[in-house]
Amino acid sequence: MNTSGHILALAGGVGGAKLASGLAAVLAPKALTIVVNTGDDFEHLGLYISPDVDSVVYALAGLNDPVRGWGLANETWNAMSAIARLGGPDWFALGDQDIATHLLRTLHLRTRTLSEITADFARRLGIVHRIVPMSDDPVRSIIETDIGPLPFQDYFVRHRCAPRFIAIRYDGIDRARPARDFIATLEDPDLRAIVLCPSNPLLSLRPILSLPGIIERLQRRRVPVVAISPFIGRDAIKGPAAKILRELGLSPTPEGLLACYASFEQSRSGRVGHAEVLQSASTARNHGERPLIDGLVVDRSDADFVTRAGTVAIHVTDTLMRNRDDQIRVARETLAFIDRL
Amino acid sequence: MNTSGHILALAGGVGGAKLASGLAAVLAPKALTIVVNTGDDFEHLGLYISPDVDSVVYALAGLNDPVRGWGLANETWNAMSAIARLGGPDWFALGDQDIATHLLRTLHLRTRTLSEITADFARRLGIVHRIVPMSDDPVRSIIETDIGPLPFQDYFVRHRCAPRFIAIRYDGIDRARPARDFIATLEDPDLRAIVLCPSNPLLSLRPILSLPGIIERLQRRRVPVVAISPFIGRDAIKGPAAKILRELGLSPTPEGLLACYASFEQSRSGRVGHAEVLQSASTARNHGERPLIDGLVVDRSDADFVTRAGTVAIHVTDTLMRNRDDQIRVARETLAFIDRL
Repeated sequence: MNTSGHILALAGGVGGAKLASGLAAVLAPKALTIVVNTGDDFEHLGLYISPDVDSVVYALAGLNDPVRGWGLANETWNAMSAIARLGGPDWFALGDQDIATHLLRTLHLRTRTLSEITADFARRLGIVHRIVPMSDDPVRSIIETDIGPLPFQDYFVRHRCAPRFIAIRYDGIDRARPARDFIATLEDPDLRAIVLCPSNPLLSLRPILSLPGIIERLQRRRVPVVAISPFIGRDAIKGPAAKILRELGLSPTPEGLLACYASFEQSRSGRVGHAEVLQSASTARNHGERPLIDGLVVDRSDADFVTRAGTVAIHVTDTLMRNRDDQIRVARETLAFIDRL
Repeated sequence: MNTSGHILALAGGVGGAKLASGLAAVLAPKALTIVVNTGDDFEHLGLYISPDVDSVVYALAGLNDPVRGWGLANETWNAMSAIARLGGPDWFALGDQDIATHLLRTLHLRTRTLSEITADFARRLGIVHRIVPMSDDPVRSIIETDIGPLPFQDYFVRHRCAPRFIAIRYDGIDRARPARDFIATLEDPDLRAIVLCPSNPLLSLRPILSLPGIIERLQRRRVPVVAISPFIGRDAIKGPAAKILRELGLSPTPEGLLACYASFEQSRSGRVGHAEVLQSASTARNHGERPLIDGLVVDRSDADFVTRAGTVAIHVTDTLMRNRDDQIRVARETLAFIDRL
């Protein structure tokens, strides 16, 4: 047990940002690296937008809007209104302060990497922990749906997740190199555990885990891998995770989540759809092969799952993070759970 | 005399926008084309910014801020604050609504010309008169100063016009084609007159007049060319025109203005500095050669100039345009003056 080591947290957007904030509140700067999904990144209005990176940065800086759940607090929308007035696209809402982030990032990307820019922005906003985009190479999540393949933001924002989810793939993933600090953390001799934040397993965590060599490195390390279930009472707190799992034939429960993670081990291409889920369910794990997840934090409403958890260790608590106290509590419990594994 | 023909107004930013608004208020849509300086255009934060085009568009749409004198009314500055927070450059103030214009223009410039985009924006903002950027090719005004050459915005905004003005040149002018609608208006058989708005002669009007073939076409047409002096009581209403003329050895008066315009005829390269002004003063006009300006509208405070105006016709009035009524009055008087020439 290494209770003073380095925690690697893998995070998507809002849910991930909440636990990441809790971890940042209780861990020293050098004891936490947060690696963030960039599969949702896209270009809009000529701006490079990195929604999950921004969610995590804004949250750790204490600048996020806790009511709306995304973007910045005290945000205004005057540029957006003016864009609509000029006949520009207004389906993706960009706040005035948020536009500053995208403008400056797009400008800096001419000469610097996303990792460098993210570190710079974080430092300027007073963040002392390391936030690392999963890769500086482009990866684009594509949702295969009953109305055809949709880039993530089209599926998520424009179509409000209404089309039926068939599969997800990650364009560019084969050529994307994991960010340097991501690899460095995975190879840190002082690595204590890997935490999969309560983010969407397919939209947010799968892209990170699909980067070349990541699952192999993760399984090679003898450190606990702990996930926090994003489900409460057979539903997702926010976003389309429950709908997507159901459309894949899985339940939005700890059980469905573990089945989903198991399918990650089956698919070499990164793509996850019905085939991978079915194959995963029918394939017996080879003797001695480590499962991806060692421990799972589940909500009280899913406590009945404990009896069916098999080899995966379970910690039951209130996983809903309504405020900073909740974030800190769930972070502390997760760290204590890690130390018991 | 053609009192129902087509007026071509050449305009810079704020002063030009005021008279252009007045002309638009009294002329039918087809009776007015406003050609606007693009020598001040520049890229900032990755955005293509066209300050004079925006000033004219905002003014004609009734969206300009009459108190500040530039930009949009009811503007907010939240993106700018956020840019400063992230360590970005904040020396050039961009309002939130204004950023929308620049974002959308920059995006559209990938597939369309500045002329097309300007026409589209103007139409969407309810403008019925034609606003034409002088060229779709890049022209950049460079101010040669005692601290070296400065791009226009560096001179104007960053250095607040403090460096001593030595000369101005217009990079790219030799290869810049006048906009199609600019040429079409100059060649319109129905052209009634050309109006040089009360803009800075060197910063705003000279770039337009320096485009290849423009002065020649202008002199070839048998239509009056009328300028409105931007000076009142030996000073400029706004901006550095008075300071610049003084630094060139000219007075900020109708006399200095005519000397400045005369120097335009001397310089083939477009560059205007001491040499061109001196050469212009010492060169006798060839017999039969038309001067650039046929008529000049001057402020009452400069009425003493009338006796020294030579062959140039003079109209004296209150040229200060504090409000829309003033704009309409000066426009009407200018049109009546044209008809008397």
